[in-house]
Amino acid sequence: MQNSPGIAALALSLLIATLGPAAAAAARRAQPPPATDEQIAVQLRDTALAGQNVAMDWVSELTTRFGPRPAGSDNERQAAEWAAARLKELGFSNVHIESFPLTAWVRGVESAQIVAPVAQPLVVAALGESPPTPAGGVEGDVVIYPTFADLKAAPSGSLPGKIAFVAARTVRTQDGAGYGAAVEARSDGPAEAAKRGAIAFVLRSVGTDSNRLAHTGTTSYVDGRVAIPAFALAAPDADQIERLAALGGKVRIRLSSSASYVRDAHSQNVVADVPGRVHPDEIVLLGAHLDSWDQGTGAIDDGTGTAIITAAAKLILDVPERVPRRTVRVVLFGSEEVAQPVAPFGAFGGHSYADNHKAELARHALAGESDFGTDRVYSVALPVGVVKGDFAATVQRVLQPIGVLPAREPARHAGTDVAPTIEAGVPAFALLQDGSQYFDIHHTANDTLDKVDREQLDQNVAAWAALVWLAADGEVDFRSKAPGP
Amino acid sequence: MQNSPGIAALALSLLIATLGPAAAAAARRAQPPPATDEQIAVQLRDTALAGQNVAMDWVSELTTRFGPRPAGSDNERQAAEWAAARLKELGFSNVHIESFPLTAWVRGVESAQIVAPVAQPLVVAALGESPPTPAGGVEGDVVIYPTFADLKAAPSGSLPGKIAFVAARTVRTQDGAGYGAAVEARSDGPAEAAKRGAIAFVLRSVGTDSNRLAHTGTTSYVDGRVAIPAFALAAPDADQIERLAALGGKVRIRLSSSASYVRDAHSQNVVADVPGRVHPDEIVLLGAHLDSWDQGTGAIDDGTGTAIITAAAKLILDVPERVPRRTVRVVLFGSEEVAQPVAPFGAFGGHSYADNHKAELARHALAGESDFGTDRVYSVALPVGVVKGDFAATVQRVLQPIGVLPAREPARHAGTDVAPTIEAGVPAFALLQDGSQYFDIHHTANDTLDKVDREQLDQNVAAWAALVWLAADGEVDFRSKAPGP
Repeated sequence: MQNSPGIAALALSLLIATLGPAAAAAARRAQPPPATDEQIAVQLRDTALAGQNVAMDWVSELTTRFGPRPAGSDNERQAAEWAAARLKELGFSNVHIESFPLTAWVRGVESAQIVAPVAQPLVVAALGESPPTPAGGVEGDVVIYPTFADLKAAPSGSLPGKIAFVAARTVRTQDGAGYGAAVEARSDGPAEAAKRGAIAFVLRSVGTDSNRLAHTGTTSYVDGRVAIPAFALAAPDADQIERLAALGGKVRIRLSSSASYVRDAHSQNVVADVPGRVHPDEIVLLGAHLDSWDQGTGAIDDGTGTAIITAAAKLILDVPERVPRRTVRVVLFGSEEVAQPVAPFGAFGGHSYADNHKAELARHALAGESDFGTDRVYSVALPVGVVKGDFAATVQRVLQPIGVLPAREPARHAGTDVAPTIEAGVPAFALLQDGSQYFDIHHTANDTLDKVDREQLDQNVAAWAALVWLAADGEVDFRSKAPGP
Repeated sequence: MQNSPGIAALALSLLIATLGPAAAAAARRAQPPPATDEQIAVQLRDTALAGQNVAMDWVSELTTRFGPRPAGSDNERQAAEWAAARLKELGFSNVHIESFPLTAWVRGVESAQIVAPVAQPLVVAALGESPPTPAGGVEGDVVIYPTFADLKAAPSGSLPGKIAFVAARTVRTQDGAGYGAAVEARSDGPAEAAKRGAIAFVLRSVGTDSNRLAHTGTTSYVDGRVAIPAFALAAPDADQIERLAALGGKVRIRLSSSASYVRDAHSQNVVADVPGRVHPDEIVLLGAHLDSWDQGTGAIDDGTGTAIITAAAKLILDVPERVPRRTVRVVLFGSEEVAQPVAPFGAFGGHSYADNHKAELARHALAGESDFGTDRVYSVALPVGVVKGDFAATVQRVLQPIGVLPAREPARHAGTDVAPTIEAGVPAFALLQDGSQYFDIHHTANDTLDKVDREQLDQNVAAWAALVWLAADGEVDFRSKAPGP
């Protein structure tokens, strides 16, 4: 920590009192200039990197106290109340909870078995929002489609009484492109299978691991609902069905789920500010989500995101030299995981925030989100107007030493929660994390605190604190579409 | 493959017919000497290493067709019938099934939750042989013991209405010593907790991973039963309870299991021979077990063991030059996992074999077992009488090139299944595998075929085929206690 301006001013007063005005003027000339934004950014970066930040404690306490935090659950609400109290304790301003209604989906008891040729248990997870099976389950012969395109190419009415199985694998990539390519089957598979008469839909988990843990995730409503029961198979179980089919003969399975819906549930966003000293109405928005899937404890999705942005904002709040010109706002969103286009089915925190703060959005300077686990940030994407020029050059000088390179493309998206805000015209930034391992754990019971690497977490906080400081204490217009000098 | 002796003899006959006796005698003198044991061992090793062996197909088909094969189950019996049929197809002699009675333990529906301070699900597995809870489960405050010694030091009557939790971690080691040190809590924990009035017993899984998958395993009978319901917690769930307790206040959990016993069940051993050409009554016994825990498909425990010994024996059966002097016997044991001292509770295949073959054991030359997964063999342990001398030197020349060093100690044990045979005086050998990763998967749902590495499997078959050939085609007396020359 450097000396604060307050102490320097006090020393100067003492000098005037002691030595008289002429000596004081000389001393004033000798006083070092105020720290530059870049100097403070470097100092924030290095403080975070040294582990002097609240991220690890935050994610540990959040996931330990409240465990899974599915949208609309008591655990999610209790976590939000805890978060608001903790943000107040940390010294944030304007801390409050914004509640919104939704229809909550609740996993029931679920099971699956191969029933022929030889009885074997299967590991499955019902997909979020998918309806229960009848009591006793549904049973049918499996029809295997190597890809989702193969299922979509199947004739209408070709699957009466059958269970459609999309066996496509998720490609491991650093940037999450593998997930993007695979997830369409999860979102749209039940509707496509139902159209062809299937009684249920299963897919190989959208994930890159080979654990006996299925990756859940939401599936899309069509006409206000998911048409048929839908499940993800753990990767080894998908392998098993494919190998059994290759040995010859039909594979018959039974699927059971007692999932249910709670139509009068609520979720909530938690808002907390570091008010700007010059332009308090210009907001740099930092988002992450407090809800999680129900199988794990939401450590990497998205406990660490909430920890990273909170820890970064807290470091900025504690900068001894000055608070930033603009307001830094932390929003811990609710109900990210079940986002659906039509409220109140899966209404989500991102829409609620953009609706509640519609009048302020024109003054939002910038928005970003941390929702990609806890692996290292390797790239920074900035709004198109600032990808060249002084701001980008400063960012590069501060972040490249911790392994963060300029992105190849300007930021256009930043995350699901802030998407409605960005669609309303707020410029986006993104600190891109290495997702090579993320989809080993994502949306599974394995999403627990032990998967969080402390050094990686600190590097994330370092990148966020430094970049957000530069954006908030500067006066750069991120909305400018003009290329920089 | 080299030319067979049959083809060489045919060529010699043709020479005699064509050139007359004098030229034939010259040709006979020029004929190469028969292959030495060491040459054939090298050839077996390299054939196996090149992937020309049945191990991968065996373990793939076994685990795919029959899935989990718990002791006394239909799946175990069907797997044994399949194995016997396949061993006959492969050309083995004396293939038969030896059945024996046991009381089978059957996992039911099980669940666990933290009920206070905040409701959270827990991942558990009932320990094998442990009794069910009452319907609705048992609920109590958790008392945490950092080690099993701490529980044993607790006063009698100190745990009324409580749930005892032993939180000790399993140390990762190459040789399995970490498992040995941790497993006592699993075996004896329920009895020690019950003595002190506990209503249930839980322990951190005996395992080295951090997946949300609990490691089951059998627990010991005292007076013919396990006293109280007993469960293993997945490692992250054990962490969670410890962290919650550290945050202050009581942690209360509920445990439920509908496990049951089947008192008129049967298991079975499958026996198959490569009959010796000189001493058919001298048996080199190769053991592994066909049964598995019920959560996975028993790929590494012990599908690969059965595959390794079957593939090694099949290579020996197919040696073109000659069959070995002694009989090579493959025994695929049943009911290894629930071994208990008192039959018929958890009677097991190892006892059944030693009983059924009591009269033959004095002529068993040597016995070994493959039951430690599929990682590479790194060491070979021989009976005390042959750890020095020509046999050991030959073994070293053949196995060191594939990474197998002489063990520091002579072999005294070889595995659970062959233990009764070895206790009856049969000398043991052991091909020691790297167990550093084994306890990540052991006794969990993750024990599936995808965890099997083909190259490691082939190296195991290579070591087994070469060593067993040297033992079976030689005339070394492995019972000799005299140190070698």
